[in-house]
Amino acid sequence: MKFHTKYLWFNTKAEKEIVPIQSEVESAVRESGIKEGFAFVSAMHITSSVFVNDHEPGLWSDILGWLEQVAPARADYAHHKTGETNADAHLKRLVMGHQVMLPITGGKLDLGPWERVFYGEFDGKRRKRVIIKVFGE
Amino acid sequence: MKFHTKYLWFNTKAEKEIVPIQSEVESAVRESGIKEGFAFVSAMHITSSVFVNDHEPGLWSDILGWLEQVAPARADYAHHKTGETNADAHLKRLVMGHQVMLPITGGKLDLGPWERVFYGEFDGKRRKRVIIKVFGE
Amino acid sequence: MKFHTKYLWFNTKAEKEIVPIQSEVESAVRESGIKEGFAFVSAMHITSSVFVNDHEPGLWSDILGWLEQVAPARADYAHHKTGETNADAHLKRLVMGHQVMLPITGGKLDLGPWERVFYGEFDGKRRKRVIIKVFGE
Repeated sequence: MKFHTKYLWFNTKAEKEIVPIQSEVESAVRESGIKEGFAFVSAMHITSSVFVNDHEPGLWSDILGWLEQVAPARADYAHHKTGETNADAHLKRLVMGHQVMLPITGGKLDLGPWERVFYGEFDGKRRKRVIIKVFGE
Repeated sequence: MKFHTKYLWFNTKAEKEIVPIQSEVESAVRESGIKEGFAFVSAMHITSSVFVNDHEPGLWSDILGWLEQVAPARADYAHHKTGETNADAHLKRLVMGHQVMLPITGGKLDLGPWERVFYGEFDGKRRKRVIIKVFGE
Repeated sequence: MKFHTKYLWFNTKAEKEIVPIQSEVESAVRESGIKEGFAFVSAMHITSSVFVNDHEPGLWSDILGWLEQVAPARADYAHHKTGETNADAHLKRLVMGHQVMLPITGGKLDLGPWERVFYGEFDGKRRKRVIIKVFGE
């Protein structure tokens, strides 16, 4: 059983942003030499997300607009008594999920035709990390 | 470490439908001969879902009705400028999640008493796939 | 490849409650002796959740209040025709997710600075279980 671990760093210009990370994950799979297994990808900060969906900027804007309705920014969250102002970003991560397992078959990501992996930032303009751990044989 | 990979195909009659897939996953586990490990199950299309919940048709109807409120079909999604009409189905997948890991202990799925695995279709009437990858020893 | 499986039991005093389980998972990782791999943690009951977010009681109260808006308790769910009254708890589990994979690097959980793992109970005052399966080498 082999493991290959690496970290991606982000510092988005916008407070909320969706960033494609498919090619970074594919590089990690190639580097690992693993033919059968998984690439695990997880956001290490609790106001950001990793998810699999469509590479289509219109949809990314739909997702960000929709999240603002489902988990809106508001002044009166209890979390803000700590001095924080980002409770909505915590809730947005919960809606979107923060980690995925991408199966590897024959040395390649075994995804559907339109599946691509993304980093979702909901409290940006600061340094944040994603862990990639490829494992298998 | 052993791996056993197979694919399930779906082509639902309804546009939105919940389909039990527990027995297909149990078959894959038996075929694999794996005694200790996991069955990974993931929807390969970005408008469908895999999730674990109750085998109760009333609840399935509640889930589909609730999703229509949380992530409604609407004409004005930006994604629709591409000619697509299914942005809501992408959002429904994000709410529901698209993959699960089912633990295997002693050669059997190690689930709670009521846990069953389902395929959730939100843009049906077309051929779609789910990947099952059983791994362990 | 090694596996170490254990179960946590819960019986919360409140119907809805968030319970920190980070130290229980860290104990399981130490007991396993696994240096490189994952701790898989999953709620075995379909009205409860396992998730990773902030150790901050104000945020926990925000999460429970927000879930009541996103997936409200209501009398008229179809699921209630079975005699159950907890359809909202099923929906809350779907929003929050029910399982996580916690990466292990160098014998320790490889999490971000604020990531902690929690059990989310949405239909409590009864005995429920979480499975932890640590695997790797």
